[in-house]
Amino acid sequence: MARVAKKLGRRPGESGTREAIAQAAQRLFSELGYDRTTIRAIAAAADVDPALVNHFFGSKQDLFRAVTTLPVELAEVLPRIAEGPRSQAGLRLADYVMGVLEDPETRRAITGLVRAAASDPEAARVVREIVTARVLTPIAEHLAADRPTLRASLINSQMVGLIMARYVLALEPLASLPRDEVVQAIAPNLQRYLTGRL
Amino acid sequence: MARVAKKLGRRPGESGTREAIAQAAQRLFSELGYDRTTIRAIAAAADVDPALVNHFFGSKQDLFRAVTTLPVELAEVLPRIAEGPRSQAGLRLADYVMGVLEDPETRRAITGLVRAAASDPEAARVVREIVTARVLTPIAEHLAADRPTLRASLINSQMVGLIMARYVLALEPLASLPRDEVVQAIAPNLQRYLTGRL
Repeated sequence: MARVAKKLGRRPGESGTREAIAQAAQRLFSELGYDRTTIRAIAAAADVDPALVNHFFGSKQDLFRAVTTLPVELAEVLPRIAEGPRSQAGLRLADYVMGVLEDPETRRAITGLVRAAASDPEAARVVREIVTARVLTPIAEHLAADRPTLRASLINSQMVGLIMARYVLALEPLASLPRDEVVQAIAPNLQRYLTGRL
Repeated sequence: MARVAKKLGRRPGESGTREAIAQAAQRLFSELGYDRTTIRAIAAAADVDPALVNHFFGSKQDLFRAVTTLPVELAEVLPRIAEGPRSQAGLRLADYVMGVLEDPETRRAITGLVRAAASDPEAARVVREIVTARVLTPIAEHLAADRPTLRASLINSQMVGLIMARYVLALEPLASLPRDEVVQAIAPNLQRYLTGRL
């Protein structure tokens, strides 16, 4: 691989080249969306030959999978959300989710994922894998209630819907509701999905 | 206008030309999404000069607005949903929504709208206008409870989230849950947004 990098690339080290491609891909996917981002444009932005992008990352879908991360560590956060009265778990989860979404940087990353998934079936597949592994499974594992995976996917439906309604569609008055009022509005609904009768 | 149509178009009647453009636009927007659909491609599909598309419909955003419809008549349906026990209104709404979403044709139209809104800010603006006029306002007008417009936008967040989670992302087990179980799962949450304490 090092030989190919030396032959085709304009950058010396293999890890530097790989990193430059990954950074360019991340930036372009988030700026242009999945389907308008081309391997050629990523190569140009990283100042490498397009063949090197395929060499390091495979297909565009593989590259998207490799550079797409969810800026949320639910697996680490959930034990803290699980602490405290069970009847208030929905409130703690709503508060955590709104904290993540009201931070401009994490919001941009998450709305970018939702946008990519909505615009392209290939991207939807990758986002589904990421959301299942990083959101649904950790939530389901922390649920003492029956049907944990169904509960986790219902919780996700409310979260994705909030992202779409408040940040992507910007439906009023939800779009300009103060953060704490959003938390109060959605917490009991998350609570039912967490622990109520389905 | 008829003179321009005769001069530039390849079809005789003005209304026939307009209709051919509208049909081509509708098909291409739903097949390719908003940002991959060009005025040029619409003109080619309708077999007219691109200048005629602008002549009849203005900008691409105006054209998208003109041809985008929501295949749901909530304003007509809501009086029926409002009939019956108030405590079961969430169930009736959930049942109606799932009826619309489980019909392949209306589902395709609605997921197309969600996809368009997610992929492009211009399209999002148009979809927001349509959803506000055709979904949020009718729901809010039928709500006897306090804060009707906030309730309507929260109901919408759950509906859009269900569309994304079940049909676009296809998150399991929600994606393959039988229709009636989806209704049972979401109805109490819609009920709270309709009539509960926010």
